[in-house]
Amino acid sequence: MKKIIIVGGVAGGATAAARLRRLDEKSHIVLFERGEHVSFANCGLPYYIGETIKDRNKLFVQTVEGMSRKFNLDIRNLTEVRKIDRENKTVEVKNLQTGETYEESYDALILSPGAKPIFPPIAGINEADNIFTLRNIPDTDKIKTYVDETKPKKAVVIGGGFIGLEMAENLVDRGIHVTLVEMAKQVMAPLDVEMAAIVHRHLKEKGVHLILEDGVKAFEDNGMKIVLNSGKELTTDMTMLSIGVKPENSLAADAGLDIGERGGIKVNEYLQTNDPAIFALGDAIEVTDYINGQPAMIPLAGPANRQGRIVANNVYGKNQVYKGTLGTGIAKVFDLTVATTGNNEKVLSQKGMAYQVAHVHPASHAGYYPGASPIALKLIFDGKSGEIYGAQAVGVDGVDKRMDVIATAIKGKLTVHDLTEIELSYAPPFSSAKDPVNMAGYVASNMIDDGIETVQWHEIDQIIADGGILIDVREPVEREAGFIAGSINIPLGEIRDRLDEIPKDQTIYVTCQVGLRGYLATRILTANGYQAKNLDGGWKTYSTVFHSN
Amino acid sequence: MKKIIIVGGVAGGATAAARLRRLDEKSHIVLFERGEHVSFANCGLPYYIGETIKDRNKLFVQTVEGMSRKFNLDIRNLTEVRKIDRENKTVEVKNLQTGETYEESYDALILSPGAKPIFPPIAGINEADNIFTLRNIPDTDKIKTYVDETKPKKAVVIGGGFIGLEMAENLVDRGIHVTLVEMAKQVMAPLDVEMAAIVHRHLKEKGVHLILEDGVKAFEDNGMKIVLNSGKELTTDMTMLSIGVKPENSLAADAGLDIGERGGIKVNEYLQTNDPAIFALGDAIEVTDYINGQPAMIPLAGPANRQGRIVANNVYGKNQVYKGTLGTGIAKVFDLTVATTGNNEKVLSQKGMAYQVAHVHPASHAGYYPGASPIALKLIFDGKSGEIYGAQAVGVDGVDKRMDVIATAIKGKLTVHDLTEIELSYAPPFSSAKDPVNMAGYVASNMIDDGIETVQWHEIDQIIADGGILIDVREPVEREAGFIAGSINIPLGEIRDRLDEIPKDQTIYVTCQVGLRGYLATRILTANGYQAKNLDGGWKTYSTVFHSN
Ligand SMILES: Cc1cc2nc3c(=O)[nH]c(=O)nc-3n(C[C@H](O)[C@H](O)[C@H](O)COP(=O)(O)OP(=O)(O)OC[C@H]3O[C@@H](n4cnc5c(N)ncnc54)[C@H](O)[C@@H]3O)c2cc1C
Ligand SMILES: Cc1cc2nc3c(=O)[nH]c(=O)nc-3n(C[C@H](O)[C@H](O)[C@H](O)COP(=O)(O)OP(=O)(O)OC[C@H]3O[C@@H](n4cnc5c(N)ncnc54)[C@H](O)[C@@H]3O)c2cc1C
Ligand SMILES: CC(C)(COP(=O)(O)OP(=O)(O)OC[C@H]1O[C@@H](n2cnc3c(N)ncnc32)[C@H](O)[C@@H]1OP(=O)(O)O)[C@@H](O)C(=O)NCCC(=O)NCCS
Ligand SMILES: CC(C)(COP(=O)(O)OP(=O)(O)OC[C@H]1O[C@@H](n2cnc3c(N)ncnc32)[C@H](O)[C@@H]1OP(=O)(O)O)[C@@H](O)C(=O)NCCC(=O)NCCS
Repeated sequence: MKKIIIVGGVAGGATAAARLRRLDEKSHIVLFERGEHVSFANCGLPYYIGETIKDRNKLFVQTVEGMSRKFNLDIRNLTEVRKIDRENKTVEVKNLQTGETYEESYDALILSPGAKPIFPPIAGINEADNIFTLRNIPDTDKIKTYVDETKPKKAVVIGGGFIGLEMAENLVDRGIHVTLVEMAKQVMAPLDVEMAAIVHRHLKEKGVHLILEDGVKAFEDNGMKIVLNSGKELTTDMTMLSIGVKPENSLAADAGLDIGERGGIKVNEYLQTNDPAIFALGDAIEVTDYINGQPAMIPLAGPANRQGRIVANNVYGKNQVYKGTLGTGIAKVFDLTVATTGNNEKVLSQKGMAYQVAHVHPASHAGYYPGASPIALKLIFDGKSGEIYGAQAVGVDGVDKRMDVIATAIKGKLTVHDLTEIELSYAPPFSSAKDPVNMAGYVASNMIDDGIETVQWHEIDQIIADGGILIDVREPVEREAGFIAGSINIPLGEIRDRLDEIPKDQTIYVTCQVGLRGYLATRILTANGYQAKNLDGGWKTYSTVFHSN
Repeated sequence: MKKIIIVGGVAGGATAAARLRRLDEKSHIVLFERGEHVSFANCGLPYYIGETIKDRNKLFVQTVEGMSRKFNLDIRNLTEVRKIDRENKTVEVKNLQTGETYEESYDALILSPGAKPIFPPIAGINEADNIFTLRNIPDTDKIKTYVDETKPKKAVVIGGGFIGLEMAENLVDRGIHVTLVEMAKQVMAPLDVEMAAIVHRHLKEKGVHLILEDGVKAFEDNGMKIVLNSGKELTTDMTMLSIGVKPENSLAADAGLDIGERGGIKVNEYLQTNDPAIFALGDAIEVTDYINGQPAMIPLAGPANRQGRIVANNVYGKNQVYKGTLGTGIAKVFDLTVATTGNNEKVLSQKGMAYQVAHVHPASHAGYYPGASPIALKLIFDGKSGEIYGAQAVGVDGVDKRMDVIATAIKGKLTVHDLTEIELSYAPPFSSAKDPVNMAGYVASNMIDDGIETVQWHEIDQIIADGGILIDVREPVEREAGFIAGSINIPLGEIRDRLDEIPKDQTIYVTCQVGLRGYLATRILTANGYQAKNLDGGWKTYSTVFHSN
């Protein structure tokens, strides 16, 4: 009888165990979990603290007993794997309740130990008892009890990633005034900055005090005071530290398994470490970025679950290839949904890949049917082949759908041209006859096929400063709410009759509200012999960054 | 200067005109529209009658003046094209206001005349003044005025397609008691019958009186009485006739253009008729079914819009191929969303194509986060290659998203195996770490890769009648709400210990609530040397059809 040992009993480990048992009824499967609980809902933890999830039991997807019985597993919780002896194919484990240490042999070993929140050695951090990180049930209980019992008035969240933002929202839901401190110039790193700007505005609307480009220098007064790098001081009743995670790699590293630059366990395409008897998955491993082919750390539950199934398949002998991680991610941030897939501009620039960008602002569904709201949708693609590199979307409704469609399109190797042809479901409550994704495809295709040229939100001010001409083709009344300094106004409907006002000896830049009318004007100007460029995303994209108050 | 004439100024025609102008600033583009309005929201009409859309002006996406100006078009509304003279490349038109008739020449002619509601010569139909069809603004005004002024208490909707169901809902929204009469044994033909059964139940819950497998024999008493084929009689204050549309093909047919069997104008892959100067699109044409390659009539706005853009491209000389219509469709039916893509079982059987089916019932998002509701999702695929033929989904939330993902997957030629690997956005408010689409992919892949055998809801009763053994692996308490007659109960958790109760000399059938535990039991039995088959979709799919009250 084969014996398979799994380290870690939550997203990746539990999935691997379940699938393995389905494939293989006879093997002895031992699941070691350091914590008390297996198979819990990590992703639900912030919402239990915020009391959107009211019943703590809902966090437990499976119990130790239930899961043991259902899948005939030998689950040993509160048991830590301390060491791997690769030569003898054994692990050393410690029962954390009894303190007993023993060895267990394996034929195959699966590592899904996850990651741990980064807890940096900042001055005063260890003296404070009101600084929290969130990863598991004990963390959750600690935070929730603290909130329930001490009823904090003010909280500081350090780090504006997914978990930081979810915690900001959930603490606000508990009536706490939240300050969010982020070292970068934007929250939510998978977004580019102009897309993050929409989130910044929304956070402020929701009363979150947002401090960007600043970090913590020291905690003072037992954590009641935070001194920032800028010298600014904050008082707080509690602090959430959510500045990222690092892989739980010590077990693997100590056993001489290959570790990547950023600490992830290295695996081959079968999710096998450099020891063929040992597989690894989940937050602990380094994956291949599906878009740029480089090593990446993408600690998300979807990939962990998928990898768990693939590892089980491979331990069973199926030889299934894991094709890399696209990094599709999503977060609810108060009323907004924020979603991304693939690579953003920052990553592509860093990797030296050339790309083009299109911003559109279509409605979530037909504008004439109640409840439609705009989606800011950004598509990033190869300006020659039309290959899709990534997408980002922010809006109140229908954001997840569009991101999932684009993520699927990427997996299907569809180009931006194909996006114009995908046939999405349309009735007024759900979409428009041209879905936002079709629309993004149209805009991108026009750039490739018809040479429609655009200029980006971050370029236009300099262009005007250098003497460029920017025509705003909106109606005068629309300009009352704001316009780009230096632009001149010729409404779209008048442009054909007023061509003589427009000089032919220089490039003409055009803008409107969202980019659509600017595009129409660009077509008219180009047909009339002008060199014209449209401001991509129009005033809406531009003003999110530059007129965000 | 080229002159292009477009017949029909709504979905297809208006889109073609707009795109053509963007490509070609100089041509003379004449748009003829028989009605008063161009570019209106056909799809919004039911919701204006139901007063979800309150402002009539919202139905007009563009006005004649606005659109003329914006796109420099020669729009002639209230003008009907009566005849095409292909030899001389002219059309004969009649100004419906003045009665004047004149000719207009063209270099290229685009036909987007749409379709008209079928109005069959049923006895008494012409004597009644309370029988309505719905296609355009005048129809809408007539119905709305009738409802507003006569305040009908009872209405009969004939035909359970998209428009019939939307009208049923909107009339109920106006406080009217609705009877829906449908000739087939199910509403919503793109669904298969077990999926439609969910809709049937919901309609009844919403107070709609549903009469299936019956049709209208005669209208009596000026339409106040309806006699059905069954002999049943209904009294009614108004009747909506929505039994389908037929293509507006007379102009084309009279001009000797090729017409398909079901009345659609025939076009080649460039959407060109057999006269190279004449293009046709929209509801009026016969398309190629993207899945089975056969001619089909698919009168939907998404395809019409897409075709409009392609026709414009091709008139301009771009030679873009229209790759066929997938037929992705969706409707809101009270609280339900009903969506389909590709072919259903009925179509595939008719075309003689072999297929496999998988039913799953996952939650719209993580079960522990409030507001999740089940989605009945059906995937139809090639049992060998895993090619996806079609999908259907019914549920309260997240249905449109899953259908759009599958529609995109089909366009990307992804197989059911690929569905297991697509990386969809996951956070608890939006999905589960294994999205419903991934889940459908898992179930289908298991059938192909691991030979997991299933039996369908419509087969199991006969199997039991023939002496087959069906084990229900749910907990006893779950069976209290209903179970399949003749099934025996061995809960999943006990099955490994009770194998000796299960005979080895015949196929064992297994069922549970949704198919998941039945699958686990199938794995256990198979591993123990049994021949086992799982009831696909479990009690949930079975009971929708057989225990629908
Ligand atoms: C608050 C929060 C919210 C999140 N929200 C989302 C979201 O919305 N969407 C999303 O995609 N992802 C989300 N994630 C990330 C997701 O939970 C992880 O990507 C996923 O759980 C990773 O799975 P894993 O198996 O690698 O690690 P885990 O699920 O963390 O499991 C690892 C387990 O291994 C155990 N372990 C470690 N070392 C040992 C050892 N030596 N011996 C025994 N046991 C050991 C640990 O105790 C742990 O329980 C969230 C995470 C958190 C913390
Ligand atoms: C009530 C209703 C609800 C709908 N809901 C949906 C939905 O939710 N989703 C969806 O995808 N589709 C829906 N549709 C279908 C969608 O509206 C059509 O598929 C689409 O409008 C077809 O476009 P078309 O250009 O072919 O025809 P149309 O949009 O109908 O335009 C054809 C126009 O041509 C004009 N015309 C015809 N002959 C002549 C002539 N000889 N001279 C001059 N003018 C002429 C007609 O007056 C008409 O205005 C709905 C349709 C209706 C009626
Ligand atoms: C619950 C858990 C143990 C996984 O168990 P699992 O059995 O692999 O997953 P599910 O319960 O979703 O079931 C999926 C299986 O049922 C099958 N299935 C699902 N619905 C089915 C149906 N209607 N009919 C037949 N089979 C079905 C699938 O094919 C799949 O089996 P396969 O992998 O052999 O193909 C694991 O995912 C877990 O611990 N999750 C919680 C932790 C976590 O993921 N955290 C991060 C997110 S909060
Ligand atoms: C409105 C109508 C005239 C179409 O006009 P249209 O200009 O083709 O469509 P839209 O207004 O959606 O604009 C799409 C164009 O703007 C471009 N565009 C959209 N957003 C843009 C942006 N932010 N930046 C640049 N370009 C943009 C697209 O690329 C596309 O242009 P292209 O076709 O040249 O590539 C036509 O669709 C119509 O009459 N609709 C109502 C009738 C109908 O469809 N009924 C059925 C459904 S209810």
